[in-house]
Amino acid sequence: MLMSSKSAEKSPIYYLFNPRSIAVIGASRDPKKIGYQILKNIIEYGFKGKVYPVNPKADEILGLKCYKSILDIPDEVDVAVISIPAQYVLPVVEECGKKGVKALIVISSGFGEVGNVELERKLVETARKYGMRILGPNIFGLYYGPARLNATFGPKEVIPGNIAFVSQSGALGIALMGWTIAKGVALSAVVSMGNKADIDDADVLEYFETDPNTKVILIYMEGIRPGLGRRFVEVARRVSKKKPIIVIKAGRTERGAAAAASHTGALAGADAIYNAAFKQAGVLRAIGFEEAFDWAKALSMLPPPKGENAVIITNGGGAGVMATDAAVECGIRLMEMPPDLQERFRKYMPPFGSPKNPIDLTGQASEEAYKGALLEAFNEPRIHSIILLYCQTAITDPEVLADKIIEAWNEAKERKPMVVSFIGGIECDRAMAKLDKAGIPAYPSPERAVSALSAVYKWARWAGYVKE
Amino acid sequence: MLMSSKSAEKSPIYYLFNPRSIAVIGASRDPKKIGYQILKNIIEYGFKGKVYPVNPKADEILGLKCYKSILDIPDEVDVAVISIPAQYVLPVVEECGKKGVKALIVISSGFGEVGNVELERKLVETARKYGMRILGPNIFGLYYGPARLNATFGPKEVIPGNIAFVSQSGALGIALMGWTIAKGVALSAVVSMGNKADIDDADVLEYFETDPNTKVILIYMEGIRPGLGRRFVEVARRVSKKKPIIVIKAGRTERGAAAAASHTGALAGADAIYNAAFKQAGVLRAIGFEEAFDWAKALSMLPPPKGENAVIITNGGGAGVMATDAAVECGIRLMEMPPDLQERFRKYMPPFGSPKNPIDLTGQASEEAYKGALLEAFNEPRIHSIILLYCQTAITDPEVLADKIIEAWNEAKERKPMVVSFIGGIECDRAMAKLDKAGIPAYPSPERAVSALSAVYKWARWAGYVKE
Repeated sequence: MLMSSKSAEKSPIYYLFNPRSIAVIGASRDPKKIGYQILKNIIEYGFKGKVYPVNPKADEILGLKCYKSILDIPDEVDVAVISIPAQYVLPVVEECGKKGVKALIVISSGFGEVGNVELERKLVETARKYGMRILGPNIFGLYYGPARLNATFGPKEVIPGNIAFVSQSGALGIALMGWTIAKGVALSAVVSMGNKADIDDADVLEYFETDPNTKVILIYMEGIRPGLGRRFVEVARRVSKKKPIIVIKAGRTERGAAAAASHTGALAGADAIYNAAFKQAGVLRAIGFEEAFDWAKALSMLPPPKGENAVIITNGGGAGVMATDAAVECGIRLMEMPPDLQERFRKYMPPFGSPKNPIDLTGQASEEAYKGALLEAFNEPRIHSIILLYCQTAITDPEVLADKIIEAWNEAKERKPMVVSFIGGIECDRAMAKLDKAGIPAYPSPERAVSALSAVYKWARWAGYVKE
Repeated sequence: MLMSSKSAEKSPIYYLFNPRSIAVIGASRDPKKIGYQILKNIIEYGFKGKVYPVNPKADEILGLKCYKSILDIPDEVDVAVISIPAQYVLPVVEECGKKGVKALIVISSGFGEVGNVELERKLVETARKYGMRILGPNIFGLYYGPARLNATFGPKEVIPGNIAFVSQSGALGIALMGWTIAKGVALSAVVSMGNKADIDDADVLEYFETDPNTKVILIYMEGIRPGLGRRFVEVARRVSKKKPIIVIKAGRTERGAAAAASHTGALAGADAIYNAAFKQAGVLRAIGFEEAFDWAKALSMLPPPKGENAVIITNGGGAGVMATDAAVECGIRLMEMPPDLQERFRKYMPPFGSPKNPIDLTGQASEEAYKGALLEAFNEPRIHSIILLYCQTAITDPEVLADKIIEAWNEAKERKPMVVSFIGGIECDRAMAKLDKAGIPAYPSPERAVSALSAVYKWARWAGYVKE
């Protein structure tokens, strides 16, 4: 892909994510400097293309030959990362244009966010003159898993996956990169948007629209620039029919919006307008990042359901009741169990169990009983999705149960959306990590599992997989 | 306490929690049997009183002399745990009465929950004849930290603390015992309520009302028995003025209520009635156990606020905006910062920081800057509570920051309610565990931290610490 013969036809934004070569302008030998950290991340994360540090005061940085200016680099440069003080950026952009660079990642701050609107405008103007696109300024960089490119000064060991994470906030974005590593969330991309002087949300949505490595797009947004709202809705509306888009839009309240406005300088419009726009665009709006990534996990792992009939399978009545409440409240339709199905589920429970919905296997349920009931559910066409709950008992081993669930998942005639929640000790956490790895999204509470399934349903209805 | 000279005046429920001696009727040598697991838990958790296994077929179990009948035990027995098949329970209750036992923990199932209402009624009638109280039947037992008593067949290593957890659901209750251990939640008591044939929620509330070891009471409830609603409201209303009561009442939806009714046989009334009752009783209603324990942690650790002025301190604008939204939405009043206070907070931030509320120390904030700002907030009487947020940065160490926060907490002239959320990698999880240990409640997201502080406010308003 990196050396594709068709590359000459690709857009600057394609090169932004898939550069064949990258220059780091402001690369530094001082480990405390951002220009050091970015270069180090690029090298150590294993970027496959060429890397050129640029710094007039150094001959070599991190074992790479260093250039005085980008114009001295003997090869083509697709992307330049710029991490130098704001006042020096403009002439460097000019040089990048002359060099034929296709896209710029402008890390430097000191532009629109501190009132330097005019300098920011000139930056964009200069880039446009040469057909270059700009990500930023005022950002922490760009990560793109398929290119093994971690051009950020955030954490290094990002887990490659298929969720694209786009953040307008810098500090929160970097912190969440670390958070995804700790929680095992796997990402195709992390895009720091910063001031959005040029490239905005709609542009990255268009890239992810056709990116085979991205299944779900998650955006943390504080505002859309004036005049760009319509384009965002148009593009998001088209993209969201193909891939789910989750947005955390902070500033829901008047006071929050005011705080957001003072933070990024973004015009924080009335929240009702955003809400209407998101609805029109088929965007799923999450309240916080826990909810957003809960949803993204399910949406990135699961196929869309073929219908509205959900069943709850549990070994604890209480957990079943909680999931029932949550399902009703977030618009999941719990199937009325036909007598013949009740009969079939009866096989996996003692006489005091319940084959209705929730299907209560009772605390006596073995790992095998779970597997049997699950296979019934997977292989029954009238059942379209499954909420699987487990309260830890002395007679079962959570990790063995996870294995049995994975067996059923793999032996089923057909894959259906299923979310899982195990409640119990540390063994349950390990078992849930195992399920996640196998592509079955598991959650720390029934409510969060149900909420994730409801996001799958909302998107599937929007995209036409199930009728509303 | 266990051998108090005043003990003769104590109630049967006092003995239930503080037995001087305990018999396990149905103790077993078979590790798969509940009668084995309970005895083992009692011994291994380090119960200080005397323990008497009762089993006609054994001479010794787990190193203890075994008795054929409770009547053979040469000493007084305060509490008997009964774990034998339902049909043998009634004569054993009679024997316990003759022996002078004060309270019974009836583990056995097969009573009201399977339609054996008459047998359950006789159980209670027999116990009453002798002045005994019954916990259960159909329960997993009782844990009470101060007595080092783990008379459950749940997990052993419960963490002693000051949250009392009362569960009507068995499977969920046991699973949550394990969950509290994994999550570091510290408990004064775990009470399995089961069928509530005799002892009901109001009875245990009355015990915890004067229990110096319990600061917060958390109840998972599916329903209150017909006729007991009024007493519950009366008792809860009185107790909740002294100690916060959190209730998870499953069956919020019609469908959930129906599932609950079939599960515990409890009459699941219309949810609106419960809601009204909880409001009248000053009970905090939580949706799920994550939320309930989030609240309980803050309520068990923090003093009540002296007023409504909350401030957010952050190093990430985005996190500050999210917390602002959450605070507004859950009724926390964010202080309008007077100019003199803004001036004082300015000392801890670069020029582009914000001393308004959220107080944004910016990504450049050092651990010392956090400590300085925190001490200002602690020592300023116009500020009543603090929401402290941190997005992990390269220039700070989360664990060092935790230490600085703890220093400020300890150096402050006065303790104020403060909730914390660190966003970032695994180092943040470790730092938050450290804060929890120091008595500062920390949460995995700003929304959860804010929600916990809002519970503190709701209770403080109800109990009269701050005016509504």
